[in-house]
Amino acid sequence: MTTSANYTTITADDLTQFTVSIFKAIGCNEADAKLAADVLIKADMRGIDSHGVARLVGYVRLYENQRINTQPNIKLVREKGSVFTIDGDSGLGLVVAPKAMQIAIEKTGLHGAGFGAVRNSNHFGIAAYHAMMALEKNYIGMAMTNASPLVAPTYSKERMLGTNPICYAIPAKSYPPFILDMATSAAANGKLEIAERQNKPVPEGWLETKNGAPTNDPKDLKDGGHLLPLGSDKDHGSHKGYGLGALVDILSGVLPGANFGPWVPPFVAFLPVLDNLPGKGLGHFVGAMDVSGFDETDVFLERMDLWIERFKSATPVNENQKVLVHGEPEYWMAISRQLKGIPLIDKVCADLTQLAEKYKLDHPF
Amino acid sequence: MTTSANYTTITADDLTQFTVSIFKAIGCNEADAKLAADVLIKADMRGIDSHGVARLVGYVRLYENQRINTQPNIKLVREKGSVFTIDGDSGLGLVVAPKAMQIAIEKTGLHGAGFGAVRNSNHFGIAAYHAMMALEKNYIGMAMTNASPLVAPTYSKERMLGTNPICYAIPAKSYPPFILDMATSAAANGKLEIAERQNKPVPEGWLETKNGAPTNDPKDLKDGGHLLPLGSDKDHGSHKGYGLGALVDILSGVLPGANFGPWVPPFVAFLPVLDNLPGKGLGHFVGAMDVSGFDETDVFLERMDLWIERFKSATPVNENQKVLVHGEPEYWMAISRQLKGIPLIDKVCADLTQLAEKYKLDHPF
Repeated sequence: MTTSANYTTITADDLTQFTVSIFKAIGCNEADAKLAADVLIKADMRGIDSHGVARLVGYVRLYENQRINTQPNIKLVREKGSVFTIDGDSGLGLVVAPKAMQIAIEKTGLHGAGFGAVRNSNHFGIAAYHAMMALEKNYIGMAMTNASPLVAPTYSKERMLGTNPICYAIPAKSYPPFILDMATSAAANGKLEIAERQNKPVPEGWLETKNGAPTNDPKDLKDGGHLLPLGSDKDHGSHKGYGLGALVDILSGVLPGANFGPWVPPFVAFLPVLDNLPGKGLGHFVGAMDVSGFDETDVFLERMDLWIERFKSATPVNENQKVLVHGEPEYWMAISRQLKGIPLIDKVCADLTQLAEKYKLDHPF
Repeated sequence: MTTSANYTTITADDLTQFTVSIFKAIGCNEADAKLAADVLIKADMRGIDSHGVARLVGYVRLYENQRINTQPNIKLVREKGSVFTIDGDSGLGLVVAPKAMQIAIEKTGLHGAGFGAVRNSNHFGIAAYHAMMALEKNYIGMAMTNASPLVAPTYSKERMLGTNPICYAIPAKSYPPFILDMATSAAANGKLEIAERQNKPVPEGWLETKNGAPTNDPKDLKDGGHLLPLGSDKDHGSHKGYGLGALVDILSGVLPGANFGPWVPPFVAFLPVLDNLPGKGLGHFVGAMDVSGFDETDVFLERMDLWIERFKSATPVNENQKVLVHGEPEYWMAISRQLKGIPLIDKVCADLTQLAEKYKLDHPF
């Protein structure tokens, strides 16, 4: 452990052990606690700090508000060949989503592909964790989820969609896999939170005020404003970002019978869940496809290497900023953090210390 | 037929009959000619004028340059349960893609889902035509294709990706289906062509000059410039648009062994095809999923109606511009054009008349 004025660095092992102990303290069995912790720590490892242990306090608060069932009876409620629906029984999304993905992977072994919609779940962490589970078998994996409404459709000033991420994970031979894991809003909520903490303006096109006016002030979001879809405005294709967010909402929410649109239950426990909900909990959509159903796996992996090489060598605008391939920066970040540990900002350490004290647990901070 | 100074209005039936005669003249059998014509006319009906009969001259030119085989032997070259690869034998994408989609629909009947990658094909028209084929059975349909390189990745000034569209078609009960059909660039190439014809500037964020500098001049594209991915710049998420375009390129190109990235053969016949191609023709990726594998079909369709109603009634910024749901404007346009005919601008009529004379065919212009 090393500390500085602003952050403390913890090894992945110590952070995992602590996180497991928290999940066990709120009632998860050993296996589920390990799985949930793994999802969070992998986010931190990959540098997606907004979705790692920084959220642990949020999950615990949802548990304390009886919004999460830590001993869920996760059930396959419907299936037809390669497709199926899972009811997560209000479990942690961190546990429900990997279990759904495991079934999608098994179905892929049988049918060449497997796709599952999930209802009655909660926030599932980074989409990449679930999609990347498919990579072990050289399958293509995908995962998406709907989320608390924050984004207004084109022409609207009402929060109707979450930042509804889409992730695809595609294996390569000699290179890190291609991992696209993107919010369908112009900017992820985490980026606004960082700007707000630092009292900095954000670019126009990230959010609007509650009246639908442009703003650079990240605080306008909490004041009833809304995020903008990818594309930011109609001229620049915000109807496409809105459409992608809508697609995620339909596949994750409408298809399995989870809540959707403005009815998706909020992640923050202090906001109320609406009455007369049309579905159960929030929803995910996960899947996998067997590369070998399309071509010899090795031949495909070699073509992926060629694709990656060609894109990495695309002519840059500025020689000092090479073209990036999705997933590569996070791959190297994970290797670095495995060696050097995970830096946690003081605010996160303070939250986690408080949590440890509340549940009378040892902690490494 | 009605004519004005700028356009001539033709009935869908007359335009179909003419288009069929052209496709037969270049060697298509009756069934293929009808299918290819249907794909083009449906685009015109839905108001996607850039992808309708306006492109007929382009397809013929590709045929005349021996880039299109009008009597292809379209083959299923690999399959595993619900997934498969098709070789289009250099056929018209307008014929190859619907045949691949038909197989995906058959596989969906057997396995709950079906996904096919297609190589050795050509431009397939509007993605929505293929995805919407699934709606007849209340399946969810999807289609994507790679295309001539025009878009530069984030941090690059090199044309590496096409406008690579993604389409999803999702059935509803009382409302028109949800149809998301979007280019993954900030603006479709067709919009630039219109601005160029009208000598009008375009918004910043649509394209850059060949040196990677911002520009409002649509002519800079032909001068070696490039389109920008959805998001337009890094601050507004262009890495997401780049990632979506890359995903389409990988699933459509790399997976089946078609060309990909900068190697995708250009649609315009006057640009050369590169040497040492890594694959065959261009590629598509199509698929379907059976809603009844996830829930009772009727229950899902009712939930879709609720989703659509709720989004249509989202609070607008401006009372005069209601919130739209994807696919609805095109649905009403098709009904209107079925009644009133399809208006073709003079330039398109002149091109088609010339084509008719060349092939000694009757024409309705």
